[in-house]
Amino acid sequence: MPVVVQNIQRADPEIVKKLGQAGVATVHESQSRTGLMSASMCPIQQGLMRAGSAVTISAAPGDNWMIHVAIEQLKEGDFLVLAPTSPCDMGYFGDLLATSAQSRGCNNLIIDAGVRDTRDLREMGFGVWSTSVFAQGTVKETLGSVNIPIVCAGALVNPGDIIVADDDGVCVVLRKNVEAVLEKVQVRLAAEEEKRIRLARGDLGLDIYGMRETLAKKGLSYI
Amino acid sequence: MPVVVQNIQRADPEIVKKLGQAGVATVHESQSRTGLMSASMCPIQQGLMRAGSAVTISAAPGDNWMIHVAIEQLKEGDFLVLAPTSPCDMGYFGDLLATSAQSRGCNNLIIDAGVRDTRDLREMGFGVWSTSVFAQGTVKETLGSVNIPIVCAGALVNPGDIIVADDDGVCVVLRKNVEAVLEKVQVRLAAEEEKRIRLARGDLGLDIYGMRETLAKKGLSYI
Amino acid sequence: MPVVVQNIQRADPEIVKKLGQAGVATVHESQSRTGLMSASMCPIQQGLMRAGSAVTISAAPGDNWMIHVAIEQLKEGDFLVLAPTSPCDMGYFGDLLATSAQSRGCNNLIIDAGVRDTRDLREMGFGVWSTSVFAQGTVKETLGSVNIPIVCAGALVNPGDIIVADDDGVCVVLRKNVEAVLEKVQVRLAAEEEKRIRLARGDLGLDIYGMRETLAKKGLSYI
Amino acid sequence: MPVVVQNIQRADPEIVKKLGQAGVATVHESQSRTGLMSASMCPIQQGLMRAGSAVTISAAPGDNWMIHVAIEQLKEGDFLVLAPTSPCDMGYFGDLLATSAQSRGCNNLIIDAGVRDTRDLREMGFGVWSTSVFAQGTVKETLGSVNIPIVCAGALVNPGDIIVADDDGVCVVLRKNVEAVLEKVQVRLAAEEEKRIRLARGDLGLDIYGMRETLAKKGLSYI
Amino acid sequence: MPVVVQNIQRADPEIVKKLGQAGVATVHESQSRTGLMSASMCPIQQGLMRAGSAVTISAAPGDNWMIHVAIEQLKEGDFLVLAPTSPCDMGYFGDLLATSAQSRGCNNLIIDAGVRDTRDLREMGFGVWSTSVFAQGTVKETLGSVNIPIVCAGALVNPGDIIVADDDGVCVVLRKNVEAVLEKVQVRLAAEEEKRIRLARGDLGLDIYGMRETLAKKGLSYI
Amino acid sequence: MPVVVQNIQRADPEIVKKLGQAGVATVHESQSRTGLMSASMCPIQQGLMRAGSAVTISAAPGDNWMIHVAIEQLKEGDFLVLAPTSPCDMGYFGDLLATSAQSRGCNNLIIDAGVRDTRDLREMGFGVWSTSVFAQGTVKETLGSVNIPIVCAGALVNPGDIIVADDDGVCVVLRKNVEAVLEKVQVRLAAEEEKRIRLARGDLGLDIYGMRETLAKKGLSYI
Repeated sequence: MPVVVQNIQRADPEIVKKLGQAGVATVHESQSRTGLMSASMCPIQQGLMRAGSAVTISAAPGDNWMIHVAIEQLKEGDFLVLAPTSPCDMGYFGDLLATSAQSRGCNNLIIDAGVRDTRDLREMGFGVWSTSVFAQGTVKETLGSVNIPIVCAGALVNPGDIIVADDDGVCVVLRKNVEAVLEKVQVRLAAEEEKRIRLARGDLGLDIYGMRETLAKKGLSYI
Repeated sequence: MPVVVQNIQRADPEIVKKLGQAGVATVHESQSRTGLMSASMCPIQQGLMRAGSAVTISAAPGDNWMIHVAIEQLKEGDFLVLAPTSPCDMGYFGDLLATSAQSRGCNNLIIDAGVRDTRDLREMGFGVWSTSVFAQGTVKETLGSVNIPIVCAGALVNPGDIIVADDDGVCVVLRKNVEAVLEKVQVRLAAEEEKRIRLARGDLGLDIYGMRETLAKKGLSYI
Repeated sequence: MPVVVQNIQRADPEIVKKLGQAGVATVHESQSRTGLMSASMCPIQQGLMRAGSAVTISAAPGDNWMIHVAIEQLKEGDFLVLAPTSPCDMGYFGDLLATSAQSRGCNNLIIDAGVRDTRDLREMGFGVWSTSVFAQGTVKETLGSVNIPIVCAGALVNPGDIIVADDDGVCVVLRKNVEAVLEKVQVRLAAEEEKRIRLARGDLGLDIYGMRETLAKKGLSYI
Repeated sequence: MPVVVQNIQRADPEIVKKLGQAGVATVHESQSRTGLMSASMCPIQQGLMRAGSAVTISAAPGDNWMIHVAIEQLKEGDFLVLAPTSPCDMGYFGDLLATSAQSRGCNNLIIDAGVRDTRDLREMGFGVWSTSVFAQGTVKETLGSVNIPIVCAGALVNPGDIIVADDDGVCVVLRKNVEAVLEKVQVRLAAEEEKRIRLARGDLGLDIYGMRETLAKKGLSYI
Repeated sequence: MPVVVQNIQRADPEIVKKLGQAGVATVHESQSRTGLMSASMCPIQQGLMRAGSAVTISAAPGDNWMIHVAIEQLKEGDFLVLAPTSPCDMGYFGDLLATSAQSRGCNNLIIDAGVRDTRDLREMGFGVWSTSVFAQGTVKETLGSVNIPIVCAGALVNPGDIIVADDDGVCVVLRKNVEAVLEKVQVRLAAEEEKRIRLARGDLGLDIYGMRETLAKKGLSYI
Repeated sequence: MPVVVQNIQRADPEIVKKLGQAGVATVHESQSRTGLMSASMCPIQQGLMRAGSAVTISAAPGDNWMIHVAIEQLKEGDFLVLAPTSPCDMGYFGDLLATSAQSRGCNNLIIDAGVRDTRDLREMGFGVWSTSVFAQGTVKETLGSVNIPIVCAGALVNPGDIIVADDDGVCVVLRKNVEAVLEKVQVRLAAEEEKRIRLARGDLGLDIYGMRETLAKKGLSYI
């Protein structure tokens, strides 16, 4: 059953780019708080805000063979997204694989496992969100699959779904929803900007959101 | 029983400031190694040394409603200190709440739970010590309390107690002890400075602290 | 049985230096993927690549007395390597001990426990790899040993073994193997450089390593 | 978007029962090692081997309202399967809900969160696999969904999929695969029985599986 | 500052006994969901439901000296409640200490650390709730305190407070609240019994609690 | 370098048996608190007290091939002791391997990884101490070694060393020390029996161990 799906569909790069600029928290809120990977996914760098299309990898624990297979499937702007079939913190990915991915226009990795050569990866500007940094090497013995639906850090990812990642973590947007989500993102960003101005000048959330009455009705007392 | 205590007492800002400059390890030692929060409390930034008066929040898991209530109670130099009533890593706090808190002179958050918008928070200079970074949103449904005693990351915090926080973690100083602790801090800092000079020029702790005899008596052998 | 072994043998500093420049992942691979400490060992700083000879410490949990004893045994270029006899995240080491170690030419600590004064340690350029940052103080009551074989974060360390540490973690090279390992490291670095060039210009790992046939034989199908 | 899907399809109870008797490890192997929930899912009892059809619940963290909604949808032999939308160890489920579920023929719960009243649940013979035992109560404030696809402890579960659970954990069988999996299970059980007899009388796996040649070819040496 | 408070007040044993029979979940609910220790506190046995008055111990990590001191303060029906001043999983307590405690009428231990000799403890009927089982021995070097307020597994415990413990964990009742809590417990138990009968005969929580209208108003749709 | 060492030396079975009857805590104390595996090693059963000679296995993560190789090396009374070369919770061992091991007189497994078929293993009386119960299957692709020194759960184990295991965990006794340790064990057991009698009749540890004076001298005050 190991399979490589070669022709996947990707979302419009312009929309993907705008989702990336909005950031994880905003995108997550804009799609009814769905699609968020667990808090175990940490960036190995600080300050990046990235988005791209998922090329998914289902790999055996401690076996990074399928990454080589997946790299051939990459197109400009893609994210590699790897979930091991059993929990594993070994170092699947380092600077050589990153060099190869970059040569095909892929500049980011989402991995529910470990990476190594992190100093080099940061210098290369290769964005990584992983659950571990660990130099432990992997083998190339067992087949897996590329571009099948996977569960990565608790989130379902289909090939071609959009990955948004920043210092807060990683969120998945279903490809079919990408336009609807962007619309909500833009409404949200505008509303937040307005609130930010009011809050900055000292208005209280209690008043902006009209919370005082509900709080009193629920029984909050001031002493 | 949800309650907001409105008029809490705070320590002298000059003393608070000096405790912040001494740092967590020194303050913790100076009050007989008490008041330290657990090592699960991590800064989202590097290099800050801060101190302030605690405005405490007891909140339901995944519910950040009470932060809005607490912000109204903030005064210049306060710290927001939040403990959920059950363990929770969700993102209670982001850049909008930070904007609101800053407008009232509060520039720091201690939270035994998660935060989000961390890139923005760092850019704003808003200091955060939390157990998680997680974009997962919260609700506003259940009442909690503001300015009651809480247990946060294993430490008891009363409203108005002094919070000292830096790259090593977070320590609580009881308000009533603040002057006595500062006195001991200053004695300690002076003594450390003296030792630092001796150690830097090559004197050994074995000799400075007179340990050789005790070590021998306890049975340490050199071979 | 507490003992201090005073005259340990160390590897040639020139070789040690070269291992440090190769980094943890490369050294680990070059000695058949052995000697790696667990992923729980994290640097408190970013970007350092260091190597040195181990002065080992076996200490009681929460007791840093033996560090003072060990410092007297340090020579230029040594690493302090401490394993508690039971798991412990307390802050064994801070800026005063670092000052003392630096005065004897030791500039790095590997500790399967906690440290404090991390801001100062970073400013001093003192490299630390630890499992915890925690201000909690320790006592000086129970004897331990210096320069005996210890198990630190899952790896066996003999006194005088070589420690290599960078952003990926910590690896131990047996002193007797140091020349053989360096030889393999240099072969590996050369081979990697060649591959990096080919990968950067777009050649695929699938072709460079001749994987296509094996993948097909194992049953990977493309659709 | 909160929704309750009322008419789901279920697998043939006879097949479900046979999968339960085969146990988790065998079922997992028979479907190419897929569908296994993570090792964080632990039984609160010992010795049960159960299987049934999933009625799925997506619930807010710390909110068990949707369990009441789901119970109305239960049929004889169903499993309740709950995943919170964010990690949570609170006690969603206790003896009253179990009483209600049992009255509708459901005798098992799979929950990526906590339960309470565990002594009563064991006495009632109500099977529970959970990530936590915790008396912390939940609220009934936020809507979720019933009988939508969920990710529970890392495994995708569709409503009507078959859950197999025993002392080793929890495995999900897609409803559409149930007959094919059972077939493989039966082949496997027969083969295992044969091997068990040979191994019990002292034959070695090395010989039964013909491993000696491959081991030698790969370079294993005996000394 | 190490101190032993000798004459503490205890609650009426009859009331304590009744709280024990109600169990942790019920007591926790009856006092507005307060006082619960964290889910890290696990029983080393199954099926016990116990309650008693807390004799509190604040001990250094890895140092069980103060348990000997505390045992002299025990009276019939007391619980030993120990919190280390820093996280520690070492084995503070075994069968000899249990023998000593039992000779003074104390039959239970609550410890935010480890215990050993667990097979013997179970055979003795000595109830233990701990965070770890670990044979690692402790020292007797550093003073602590007995019968001062402590934070144990996230809950504040004053000497003489009532501890309720069962298979679900551990809950603390403030001594001054003990009668009020018992009253609420009894109301709650009666109400639960009534609900249990209705649920057992097939009535739904949706109807018993009148939830259908609220669910509809919040927007839950059935399809 | 993968190797199988075929002729290892074992300790006298009579001595091994006596160490097993003494239990982990006593043996650990009798050898100066050394040799204890970490608290992450948990029994899958309750009440067993076992001891035997270690046949060690160093295996790749998720690869149980070497267990088949090791079984051929087993003799009556041996323990299989497996450490993966990188952390792994997969199910290396189940009822078929246990059947094979039992046919050669080995009835116990110590594994710093996962096992499965736990219900069967308990019924077979096969003792297991592991870090995980997980049905996830392993592969047979990568060589490891049998009967070389390994680090298992933080403890160094040489082939032929004695393993003692019970409900408290696992302890290793060096083969060369086995007689000396047994001697100390017997002295200790006798002394403990005497103390148990005194403690049971109400004598206090404070008096038996003469602690009162030291406590007073260190500054403990009674109020």
